[in-house]
Amino acid sequence: MDIGTVLGYGIAWGALGFGMWHITHGAIGPYIKPTEVILVGGCAVGAAIAGTPLKAIIASLKASKKLFSGGHHDTAHIIKEIVGYAETARRDGVLALEQASKDHPDPFMRRGLQLTIDGTDPEVVERILRIEIDAMIERHKHGKHFWAAVAKFGPGCGLLACLVAQIALFKNLNGDPAAIGSALAVALVGTLYGAMIQNVIAGPIAEKLGFISKEEAFAKEVMMQGLLSIQAGNNPRVVEMQLMSFVTTGQQQVMMRQAA
Amino acid sequence: MDIGTVLGYGIAWGALGFGMWHITHGAIGPYIKPTEVILVGGCAVGAAIAGTPLKAIIASLKASKKLFSGGHHDTAHIIKEIVGYAETARRDGVLALEQASKDHPDPFMRRGLQLTIDGTDPEVVERILRIEIDAMIERHKHGKHFWAAVAKFGPGCGLLACLVAQIALFKNLNGDPAAIGSALAVALVGTLYGAMIQNVIAGPIAEKLGFISKEEAFAKEVMMQGLLSIQAGNNPRVVEMQLMSFVTTGQQQVMMRQAA
Amino acid sequence: MDIGTVLGYGIAWGALGFGMWHITHGAIGPYIKPTEVILVGGCAVGAAIAGTPLKAIIASLKASKKLFSGGHHDTAHIIKEIVGYAETARRDGVLALEQASKDHPDPFMRRGLQLTIDGTDPEVVERILRIEIDAMIERHKHGKHFWAAVAKFGPGCGLLACLVAQIALFKNLNGDPAAIGSALAVALVGTLYGAMIQNVIAGPIAEKLGFISKEEAFAKEVMMQGLLSIQAGNNPRVVEMQLMSFVTTGQQQVMMRQAA
Amino acid sequence: MDIGTVLGYGIAWGALGFGMWHITHGAIGPYIKPTEVILVGGCAVGAAIAGTPLKAIIASLKASKKLFSGGHHDTAHIIKEIVGYAETARRDGVLALEQASKDHPDPFMRRGLQLTIDGTDPEVVERILRIEIDAMIERHKHGKHFWAAVAKFGPGCGLLACLVAQIALFKNLNGDPAAIGSALAVALVGTLYGAMIQNVIAGPIAEKLGFISKEEAFAKEVMMQGLLSIQAGNNPRVVEMQLMSFVTTGQQQVMMRQAA
Amino acid sequence: MDIGTVLGYGIAWGALGFGMWHITHGAIGPYIKPTEVILVGGCAVGAAIAGTPLKAIIASLKASKKLFSGGHHDTAHIIKEIVGYAETARRDGVLALEQASKDHPDPFMRRGLQLTIDGTDPEVVERILRIEIDAMIERHKHGKHFWAAVAKFGPGCGLLACLVAQIALFKNLNGDPAAIGSALAVALVGTLYGAMIQNVIAGPIAEKLGFISKEEAFAKEVMMQGLLSIQAGNNPRVVEMQLMSFVTTGQQQVMMRQAA
Repeated sequence: MDIGTVLGYGIAWGALGFGMWHITHGAIGPYIKPTEVILVGGCAVGAAIAGTPLKAIIASLKASKKLFSGGHHDTAHIIKEIVGYAETARRDGVLALEQASKDHPDPFMRRGLQLTIDGTDPEVVERILRIEIDAMIERHKHGKHFWAAVAKFGPGCGLLACLVAQIALFKNLNGDPAAIGSALAVALVGTLYGAMIQNVIAGPIAEKLGFISKEEAFAKEVMMQGLLSIQAGNNPRVVEMQLMSFVTTGQQQVMMRQAA
Repeated sequence: MDIGTVLGYGIAWGALGFGMWHITHGAIGPYIKPTEVILVGGCAVGAAIAGTPLKAIIASLKASKKLFSGGHHDTAHIIKEIVGYAETARRDGVLALEQASKDHPDPFMRRGLQLTIDGTDPEVVERILRIEIDAMIERHKHGKHFWAAVAKFGPGCGLLACLVAQIALFKNLNGDPAAIGSALAVALVGTLYGAMIQNVIAGPIAEKLGFISKEEAFAKEVMMQGLLSIQAGNNPRVVEMQLMSFVTTGQQQVMMRQAA
Repeated sequence: MDIGTVLGYGIAWGALGFGMWHITHGAIGPYIKPTEVILVGGCAVGAAIAGTPLKAIIASLKASKKLFSGGHHDTAHIIKEIVGYAETARRDGVLALEQASKDHPDPFMRRGLQLTIDGTDPEVVERILRIEIDAMIERHKHGKHFWAAVAKFGPGCGLLACLVAQIALFKNLNGDPAAIGSALAVALVGTLYGAMIQNVIAGPIAEKLGFISKEEAFAKEVMMQGLLSIQAGNNPRVVEMQLMSFVTTGQQQVMMRQAA
Repeated sequence: MDIGTVLGYGIAWGALGFGMWHITHGAIGPYIKPTEVILVGGCAVGAAIAGTPLKAIIASLKASKKLFSGGHHDTAHIIKEIVGYAETARRDGVLALEQASKDHPDPFMRRGLQLTIDGTDPEVVERILRIEIDAMIERHKHGKHFWAAVAKFGPGCGLLACLVAQIALFKNLNGDPAAIGSALAVALVGTLYGAMIQNVIAGPIAEKLGFISKEEAFAKEVMMQGLLSIQAGNNPRVVEMQLMSFVTTGQQQVMMRQAA
Repeated sequence: MDIGTVLGYGIAWGALGFGMWHITHGAIGPYIKPTEVILVGGCAVGAAIAGTPLKAIIASLKASKKLFSGGHHDTAHIIKEIVGYAETARRDGVLALEQASKDHPDPFMRRGLQLTIDGTDPEVVERILRIEIDAMIERHKHGKHFWAAVAKFGPGCGLLACLVAQIALFKNLNGDPAAIGSALAVALVGTLYGAMIQNVIAGPIAEKLGFISKEEAFAKEVMMQGLLSIQAGNNPRVVEMQLMSFVTTGQQQVMMRQAA
């Protein structure tokens, strides 16, 4: 459970709700306009759907669950695991990694281990795994894209809604000030919804999916370097030393203290 | 038929139309101003034409039909096909691919197969096909560019129209409020049209063409890697394993289950 | 004569002129303010001059004539020419290209042919021609930059003019409404000019120069690959096949039909 | 102590405070609205938290202390140190660097020296240190990201606050002018806070963290090149000459004069 | 003396001054508000200082003198010089370049000649000079950054000043219209100053410094290629032909005519 997403949205929406409630002395009715919800939301979501292949939209929605499941990409843990495999390979030969290549939860690691066991040529292994990482990054971009498109079209559609309301208003300027004020408020609600889509709905999702993608690619890079080092027949200590380059100095010291 | 484009535009325009209809209680006349259509649309399209070579404009219009024909780039299908070719080549020699090199619907695949059959040097094959992919990506950028230019110039031309109307208005401020309101409404219609061009007309087209281009390049990359692997005389299982790097873990498992 | 630039500007300015003429019922006087022309235009051009070396400004102005002369970069034509050279070289030796290396209208092709005739080392030829392409792209960026700078500073200077007029206005708010309206109109004319510079004057020029540069680089890339293929002593059919990667499938088929 | 950060914030906030104080004749009360602080600040910080993994947020906060501690990355000093090591290695062998590899304050240098002493293969050393620099740059991006996100969401959330206040206001347009003015002032305070977050709070922090990251990467690049040169058994003068490429001509002359 | 910078600023400021003078009939007092100068200027400069390390600020100020000294990077001249060195080296050996390596005004050329005379390994020479060019580009970015930051923070701080003034104003809406107008004018002066910082003060400086940096890097690239060609023992004609790739066709012809 990634507490960050929940916490962040909680703070942002809490602050927004508190502001609305405080400024209107608790009468937040004026901020809720179903017509504007349909107009702004439908327009932004529709434009994003029109601009994104269906496959990418589905990928986006699937990727969204990662926002809450949190990243399990503990680099230190991956390094320990790989050093363990290096020790096994050293002691009992790479064939002893057979079991791990079937049981490991991460399919990338399973595949990499299988290639190592098969004695595939190191250059081929690197090419296969590199393609896999690059294809994953490309797919992640799709996953992020739909939310980024919604966030991007949000303010534009808020502007559309605002203009639609204002045009209606200016055709009827003879009305009483209260009616004009009320109509202007409706126009501003459209702008508000557009800004909300960008700032407290879709924007942070797109940002975070981009981040999670980088973390996954980073974790897979560590795995790949480790597997290639095992395949090169390196001593477990050398494998460890190579992989420690991926972590901070602080983490390096913690890991060395644990190892000692 | 790519349902996504139709669906997305349907939702966006539906939401916009509903909003206009609801806010004016069904009198959507104020949103339809032929003069502003000519002013904003002509200005944005004209600026985009001036900024794009004619060849690229024609490419843009041709590319637009892809928005509805949908992408036929099913990576799993391509992989199966290539593995089939690898089996044929293994069993009967590469010359047995002659028929496929004539019948395949994709000219890139035909060309690649022909080069393979001709026994062209692998490095030359890779260079030729790589140039073909790169040149295609470059052409696709042209195809996307015109729509992106229309989308970019849209809001600027909406602003032009709004200013043109407001300047006319402010020269005649002595008029009655109704006339002023009506003139202001005309000014806002210009802004509305500019925002519509960007958000619910040309913007999503440009976005989607960019996406489709990436998908085509991805599909051709898979084909190229597969053909090179066949040419290297690899076992069909090795060809398959190499190409599976291009698909998700989920797809990998589906494909392995089907193969088993 | 590149009809696109003329056509595009014609449409954009026609639409703008029609809009002004229609909205004011033919009295377009309010849109013409010499002071604002000097203020906005001088400010944008001056800022662009200050931000661009004189050499690059001269390059910009020279490059502008390309907007109307059109691109003569017909890839199919270049390919045919090079295949012809390959046939000559095959039949009579590379020295037979001497005449072409003196008569060809494109200095890049002349230089490339000369290097080929001189029997310069292929790697050196590639490096020399690559530097020439890269240096050309760099110079083209300069040529585009001045117009891009004018387009970028346009709206900012329009805002400056608008603020200058509004500040003068607000110091004299006691005047009659007609005077205020007229002054506001002047302020908006400044904004209008800024938006015009960006959208219907300098913006499309900058866009198109960028495009033309890419096309020239593309044409020179085709020439370079062809010359290197001739130098490698390739069969004219192989040279043709390699260069056909640069054109679309449709063009490939047209060319093959013509050749057959 | 990096005087720049303190000085810059002092000038910016001093100018802002002076402006507020002067314009209101010392009554700066209207600029202080706790509700708007909660609304704008909470919304921007919440959106940034939702868009950033917790790990990266913590990295951001840790990185912030670098803003004040200043950069200790004196390239000239690093070069002198490495030339000293080169002299030691020349005179007494690389094993004589053992002590330095334990005492040096920078863990990257310690690690690099240790690898050199161990006689690790130069290509492996380069790869390990390169991964370490790249991973550091990646982590620094995370450290910068949170502040950049706060700066980015700031104006959007200021707009949200402004709209929330204006909508409440327009529902009650019948009030007296003073009340309306006061309510409009509250709306503008929201916008003001958003602009402050971007311009005088989070924006400069994000900028400076980006700078500091580049400087650290630059310093580590110098160290790596120096260590590789020592490992190649180069003469201390050659090591020095190679590293002097990293500094300006002015610094080169100063260093040569000191050395002479 | 680079006439471009002076000319550009002259035109921009002339146009702005003329506009102010003409619109107010010569009473430009309303545009001069010391409080706003302090508020907007202090805020933008302070934010830029806070976001830039002190070293980079000093580099920025030093780099600014280049705006007026003009670029002495005449590629044709550099080529002639290097061809002269190639002739000397051919005739009298590279040691005859000793004098030039001491007298040349450009330290990069001096250093390159010295490395050539020392008979340093060509790959090492290329690496050293490449690092020098890259480090110079990096430093130039710092030099440009401060001005770019001032330009970027300018409009934001102009908005801050405008909001500060408007908030004060709306608290006192009961005042007479003249007072309100005057206060609004003050608010707009803040916006004006922000737009001026971006468009006619810091923006062009940042643009031009970026340009000058590219030109210096280009000139040094020409020098490096020439020196490497001399070191490879190439014939002066070959050196010339290689370097001519860096100049336009027009310049090539001029140079060849002069040489003939």
